[in-house]
Amino acid sequence: MDIAILLFDQVTALDAVGPYEVLGRLPGARLTFVGERRGEVRTDLGSLALTVDATLEEVPRPDVIVVPGGIGQQRHMTDGPVHRWLRAADATSTVTTAVCTGSLILAAAGLLRGRRATSHWVRREDLAAHGAVPVAERVVTDGKYVTAAGVSAGIDMALTLVDRLAGRGAAEAIQCGIEYDPMPPFDAGSPDKVDPATVARLLTLKDLVF
Amino acid sequence: MDIAILLFDQVTALDAVGPYEVLGRLPGARLTFVGERRGEVRTDLGSLALTVDATLEEVPRPDVIVVPGGIGQQRHMTDGPVHRWLRAADATSTVTTAVCTGSLILAAAGLLRGRRATSHWVRREDLAAHGAVPVAERVVTDGKYVTAAGVSAGIDMALTLVDRLAGRGAAEAIQCGIEYDPMPPFDAGSPDKVDPATVARLLTLKDLVF
Repeated sequence: MDIAILLFDQVTALDAVGPYEVLGRLPGARLTFVGERRGEVRTDLGSLALTVDATLEEVPRPDVIVVPGGIGQQRHMTDGPVHRWLRAADATSTVTTAVCTGSLILAAAGLLRGRRATSHWVRREDLAAHGAVPVAERVVTDGKYVTAAGVSAGIDMALTLVDRLAGRGAAEAIQCGIEYDPMPPFDAGSPDKVDPATVARLLTLKDLVF
Repeated sequence: MDIAILLFDQVTALDAVGPYEVLGRLPGARLTFVGERRGEVRTDLGSLALTVDATLEEVPRPDVIVVPGGIGQQRHMTDGPVHRWLRAADATSTVTTAVCTGSLILAAAGLLRGRRATSHWVRREDLAAHGAVPVAERVVTDGKYVTAAGVSAGIDMALTLVDRLAGRGAAEAIQCGIEYDPMPPFDAGSPDKVDPATVARLLTLKDLVF
């Protein structure tokens, strides 16, 4: 099983690394970080670089496609090498997935027309402009298309994928292995759980941060 | 505020990237990935490389120290450049922290003697050999020393740190920004929640995976 996680400049690191930490432990799977060019991409916060190990051409037919989001998503909303690779790879993939604003890239490439999908809460409604049906859930499955909410939701999505691809036992072993027994100190993980001023401030950062 | 996250070959990516995604959003903070040499380090699963942007010498007095774990931890259990940097940096740090088996490095450097601390559940009791007091909690605070359980626990720890360093409002804004409203598909995040065969299998992987 070939798993490809797309990278690009100004990707959000956890969008990609959450699914990596789960899917990279799937027995028998080969996981590759792909991008337009080999070498470093700088993530959106600026203080971390991740490495693209293979070009898009080198991994043309992955079984699992993962598209993360981040500010850099905005440069992949028109037709180009990333869209062409996504459409060609999607033709033979088992599952095509996205985390956070990565779903906007999938949608702009034409892959989510009429499909239920989600994204980071700040950008979720933007999916409709590309023919997808926005859904306010953490992980949304519509056929072989699986999308996750913002940033950290990729961990939950990836465990769902392991269950689908290798069964519940594998998913539970990986979850226990990465000790994913979350206990956030606050209950502030979605906009309906924090004060309106916080939400308003995050919305002003929309184009800078997500 | 200077935040330094240590990297080394065979680090577990999420141990470092979880805290990065939270602490990197702290207003006014400068976050740097440090290591013995600049350039790429390959993470433990082999399929991802992260970049060290500064040598240990270049960031001698960070306010916040984060030590991740991973298989590579085992090469940093004896005195050497990493231990010397940790001891010197700890002399002036505001908080000194570790995720997963990173706490074993801190302990081996002599910084957790008599301190309550935690680690990945597979390795937690090993802390006692280095004079620390193992505690089975997700995030353990003892004075300025804060340690987290395995891999994904670094996200919870980092939110705790933001609360401590910048207040609850900042922590909640960041939590909402990264949409950390976890909903794992299974309740399998700790060894008491999965079947004993899964635990036994994970324990046989102890030296390979954590």
